[in-house]
Amino acid sequence: MDEFDLIHSITPPTLHHSSVDVGIGDDAAVYTANRGVQEIVCVDTMVEDVHFKLDYSSPQDIGYKALAVNISDIAAMGGFPKFYLVSIAVPTTWQASDVRAMYEGMNELAKLYQMDLIGGDSVSTSDKLVVTVTVIGEVEQGRACLRSSAKPNDIVFVTGELGCSAAGLSLLLEEFSPPVSIETAHFIKRHKRPEPRVMAGRLCSAFERVALNDISDGLASELNEIAEASSVTIEIEESLLPVRQDLSKLHPQWQKWALFGGEDFELTGTISNLEWDLLKEQCKKLCIPIKQIGVVIENTGSSVILNTGSQRMALEKKGYNHFR
Amino acid sequence: MDEFDLIHSITPPTLHHSSVDVGIGDDAAVYTANRGVQEIVCVDTMVEDVHFKLDYSSPQDIGYKALAVNISDIAAMGGFPKFYLVSIAVPTTWQASDVRAMYEGMNELAKLYQMDLIGGDSVSTSDKLVVTVTVIGEVEQGRACLRSSAKPNDIVFVTGELGCSAAGLSLLLEEFSPPVSIETAHFIKRHKRPEPRVMAGRLCSAFERVALNDISDGLASELNEIAEASSVTIEIEESLLPVRQDLSKLHPQWQKWALFGGEDFELTGTISNLEWDLLKEQCKKLCIPIKQIGVVIENTGSSVILNTGSQRMALEKKGYNHFR
Repeated sequence: MDEFDLIHSITPPTLHHSSVDVGIGDDAAVYTANRGVQEIVCVDTMVEDVHFKLDYSSPQDIGYKALAVNISDIAAMGGFPKFYLVSIAVPTTWQASDVRAMYEGMNELAKLYQMDLIGGDSVSTSDKLVVTVTVIGEVEQGRACLRSSAKPNDIVFVTGELGCSAAGLSLLLEEFSPPVSIETAHFIKRHKRPEPRVMAGRLCSAFERVALNDISDGLASELNEIAEASSVTIEIEESLLPVRQDLSKLHPQWQKWALFGGEDFELTGTISNLEWDLLKEQCKKLCIPIKQIGVVIENTGSSVILNTGSQRMALEKKGYNHFR
Repeated sequence: MDEFDLIHSITPPTLHHSSVDVGIGDDAAVYTANRGVQEIVCVDTMVEDVHFKLDYSSPQDIGYKALAVNISDIAAMGGFPKFYLVSIAVPTTWQASDVRAMYEGMNELAKLYQMDLIGGDSVSTSDKLVVTVTVIGEVEQGRACLRSSAKPNDIVFVTGELGCSAAGLSLLLEEFSPPVSIETAHFIKRHKRPEPRVMAGRLCSAFERVALNDISDGLASELNEIAEASSVTIEIEESLLPVRQDLSKLHPQWQKWALFGGEDFELTGTISNLEWDLLKEQCKKLCIPIKQIGVVIENTGSSVILNTGSQRMALEKKGYNHFR
């Protein structure tokens, strides 16, 4: 498809933000940054057959998710997303309608957050589809939620439910046959159309000190990152992990999905125990599920400890280790 | 290669800009935007075997160019580049040292402009290398050089020389045997290591009204974009095109390279005839070659006209058409 046609067909007819001075159609986009805010920027790439397969993901799904994972990074900083740019390497076998459908998938989500598409690039490739999305967001000066903010005695929390996306992926890959009594659509939707927790991140950013990560690589990995960046130990209780009842009936390895399955795009973090009740209450008002799963303790040498009730184990980024 | 090792090895030990609040190592980068400036952002993707081939481009070359083409977009807005983010899909066959070499190639250029690497993503692919670079720059409020600024009686100018990069690519692809008397290294270097015209763009931005494009898709294409965005006709003189003497001896199709060969990453634009002498003088002081190649006239229906001396022809984005 001709790039000029593409640019024309994806250029938004109206912009949400008057701070966009030049959008699509020049060498680069220009926008005016506000005083008293910090700009947040992130970029993520999705590759066909690595991050998704065309046999189960539609172009809309791919577009939606490519934007969602970046919005989730902004949410994990406590910010709100404003602008995005899309760079795609499109297989020569793709139709113009497929490419447009991918942008429509992004637009579905962008509308929800009043985000403006302000630029990008499209090239053709003889190989697999590669989608790279850059998102620019903002947060009030000094209010970004950093990984390094955790302190002993903080409460460790997580939003939503864990492991659903990993279960959905396993279902899509037909790695097992689910029990007939279980409705699988929810898991698949969680994998294909994750919902970034922007509102929860915004609530967190209003508190004095919240460490925050989005769960892209699995709970264990994200908590290890917070513990390392903050030089503390995080101890979580297996019995407190928020897991959908269906999940445990779906497959015996549900605990692995909950701890190590990535792409739930929930938020996990830590907050002062004095402020936890207020955050919980604010989330409740907005119908955002949030739950304590552990506490931060002084650095014991291990970054993350999982308490199963019968034993305490070091929880590595990618697996279990018996407690050293 | 492990992503954490990669992140560690590419994280800059020091930052040029104190406005970076959070660089690499959290979910997203955070920076503080200044008052009185506009942020400029652009993104470009390069795909192996579409934009470069590994048999003639080293990882350093690829990294250098992936950043250079984005800096060139910032230059074409009259801005200066400040930050960059890199998202790569790396073939599983690549060694860690190759990936590091690619980042070193970028760093060579970044140092020149005191740019900070503030984020990115790396994923693995079973296919070709895909490199996407996002660059964020700034320009003083209201001073961006837009394509839509050209007016009748303006001078049309171009920096540097045209067609060298296309000649270099043709040499690299061994499409012809060059005469032995011609030194080919210059052309190849222009293709592999283009030098974005940031300084020239900055000079242009200080003038009241300059339309500006960087030559990524060829002079004809860039001038058509300016003419269309400004609703004017641009008339250029073939005899005025700045072409290296060697080029005309290299191959009979040198004129095609000069007009349609992309990736020279020179700047072309228009400026009021009252201000042209001053811009020329300022460029001379900084040893930036700049030359008038034509004038802007009232819209005649054609966007760009090429005057060869014997005839006037409509110059389309991708080729010649006899003047209608």
